[in-house]
Amino acid sequence: MSKQKLPRVVVIGGGTGMPVLLRGLKNLPIELTALVTVADDGGSTGRIRSEMAIPAPGDIRNVIAALSDAEPMLLELFQHRFSEGNGLSGHSMGNLLLAAMTSVTGNFNTGIKEISRVLNVKGKIYPISNENMSLHAEMEDGTIVSGESNIPLSNKRIKRVFLRPQPVKPLPNAVRAIEAADLVVISPGSLYTSIMPNLIIPQVKEALRDTKGKVVYVCNVMTQAGETTGYTVSDHVKAISDHIGQGCIEAIVVHNEVIDKSIRAIYAEENAAPVEYDMERLLDMDLEIIEGDIIDHSQFTLRHDNNKIANLLYSIMEKE
Amino acid sequence: MSKQKLPRVVVIGGGTGMPVLLRGLKNLPIELTALVTVADDGGSTGRIRSEMAIPAPGDIRNVIAALSDAEPMLLELFQHRFSEGNGLSGHSMGNLLLAAMTSVTGNFNTGIKEISRVLNVKGKIYPISNENMSLHAEMEDGTIVSGESNIPLSNKRIKRVFLRPQPVKPLPNAVRAIEAADLVVISPGSLYTSIMPNLIIPQVKEALRDTKGKVVYVCNVMTQAGETTGYTVSDHVKAISDHIGQGCIEAIVVHNEVIDKSIRAIYAEENAAPVEYDMERLLDMDLEIIEGDIIDHSQFTLRHDNNKIANLLYSIMEKE
Repeated sequence: MSKQKLPRVVVIGGGTGMPVLLRGLKNLPIELTALVTVADDGGSTGRIRSEMAIPAPGDIRNVIAALSDAEPMLLELFQHRFSEGNGLSGHSMGNLLLAAMTSVTGNFNTGIKEISRVLNVKGKIYPISNENMSLHAEMEDGTIVSGESNIPLSNKRIKRVFLRPQPVKPLPNAVRAIEAADLVVISPGSLYTSIMPNLIIPQVKEALRDTKGKVVYVCNVMTQAGETTGYTVSDHVKAISDHIGQGCIEAIVVHNEVIDKSIRAIYAEENAAPVEYDMERLLDMDLEIIEGDIIDHSQFTLRHDNNKIANLLYSIMEKE
Repeated sequence: MSKQKLPRVVVIGGGTGMPVLLRGLKNLPIELTALVTVADDGGSTGRIRSEMAIPAPGDIRNVIAALSDAEPMLLELFQHRFSEGNGLSGHSMGNLLLAAMTSVTGNFNTGIKEISRVLNVKGKIYPISNENMSLHAEMEDGTIVSGESNIPLSNKRIKRVFLRPQPVKPLPNAVRAIEAADLVVISPGSLYTSIMPNLIIPQVKEALRDTKGKVVYVCNVMTQAGETTGYTVSDHVKAISDHIGQGCIEAIVVHNEVIDKSIRAIYAEENAAPVEYDMERLLDMDLEIIEGDIIDHSQFTLRHDNNKIANLLYSIMEKE
């Protein structure tokens, strides 16, 4: 890697895992691009989607907030959620701003770009697509569950997820970013409902196979009820491979420390448990394993530690 | 007036007349303060008021837009009105931002200040009050009509307007601005529903009487159905004097050119006509009269010409 040119890092994901990862990465000397899912259909985002026919703004909003260097009060305004008002209650200010800027500029992606500029965002943020898509799951028992927010609620094992309308066209810049990346990071997050909706778009899948950059998956630390109950680390990898093909993921970042009993107890109430680190099977998969203590022990909710993980990822690039 | 210190100009008003005036004044070498009504209760503003119990944001929003030096796209976003969305449709983005910033900062006036800062507003903007007030009118026939937006619809002659709850407390900074002003401009606009709600607050009334600054009234050019049908210029002055006492207004800016027939025809459809310039009665009132062609002839809607009027007002200060 030349010293003149900053390494290009692309992060793909959504949900709550991605912003954490990005908060760490934004401080590194890299050229950062975030590709974000627009398949969410719950809450304020879902209402805006169905009423205004724009792609889901919620995941994008959280990524903007994570990468923004704006002053705290502006970010608080951006993340403000109305608690009163007929029809307004529950809406997030940032979602409304993204919807309005989409109207003003005539395009969702341009709307994101302009809002990002106002909020002094570090790096580039692209929606994985400009289209208003919907996510569906085929369960192990053959039933189909439609809608991102409904999928985890069915409490059946997921066989595969797919998008409609088909084929979903990705944002060309998103595909180009993957192709030109030095490192592609598949973010932690809800495996089937935040991560997969990006990866399964045909041209994204191809770009992940063709990129000269290394594709690294940062695995979830806890299982998620309705999505990954009982999944080991290798089950996560296998789920992705089943959707996008073998051999795309070259390396995996795994948490290798025991998770505190009190934290486990909190998660147990939501039927979530630590993701078992099944190293043998991972080695069989011919994956480079990057292990470390990557969680933030200062919080009651389990979160990746944004600096620890950013440093681990940066060390991968230095080795290249 | 010392050359070191910029003259302090305070403009009081609301509605559509005030932003026009401010667009001209903001380019002058003055210390500008806008005191804005919060008595509106129609449309998006009315919904936000009743659902969130904050003062009316709509007039403030238009003043912010008028005094802002932000880039056009940001202003377009700020003035964007949602045309879709259950509960969102009809809401103005700027009103929502003001409501959200009020929540974030805990105070309407602070919310305005912060939004003004983001939008690079020239001058200071104060709501006339932080209170959620309502406007009522006593008609000539003795009936009471409640609600700013209802008053012009009753099609009766207005005797007087008053506020509830009583006494309305003005914003201390608004009162101080009047007291310390070199020039106080009472803006054109809906006489009873945009201008009067500011002036009739007891402490504002007193400040207008006590200020060392000159109080100038910029009279409307056209009458307004439901408010000032048949009113001459002196009738406008008398209406204000009846509410705040004789002798507060020292000078009046009057349009002295004939209004184009085609424009008059458009206004006639809304039962509006040119305000008759009854100079004799104005002279009897012991008013300094500043007359000129102060309308913008380039538009189909009659508007004050913001530069002409700003220059006239500036010439008053130079004479002092």
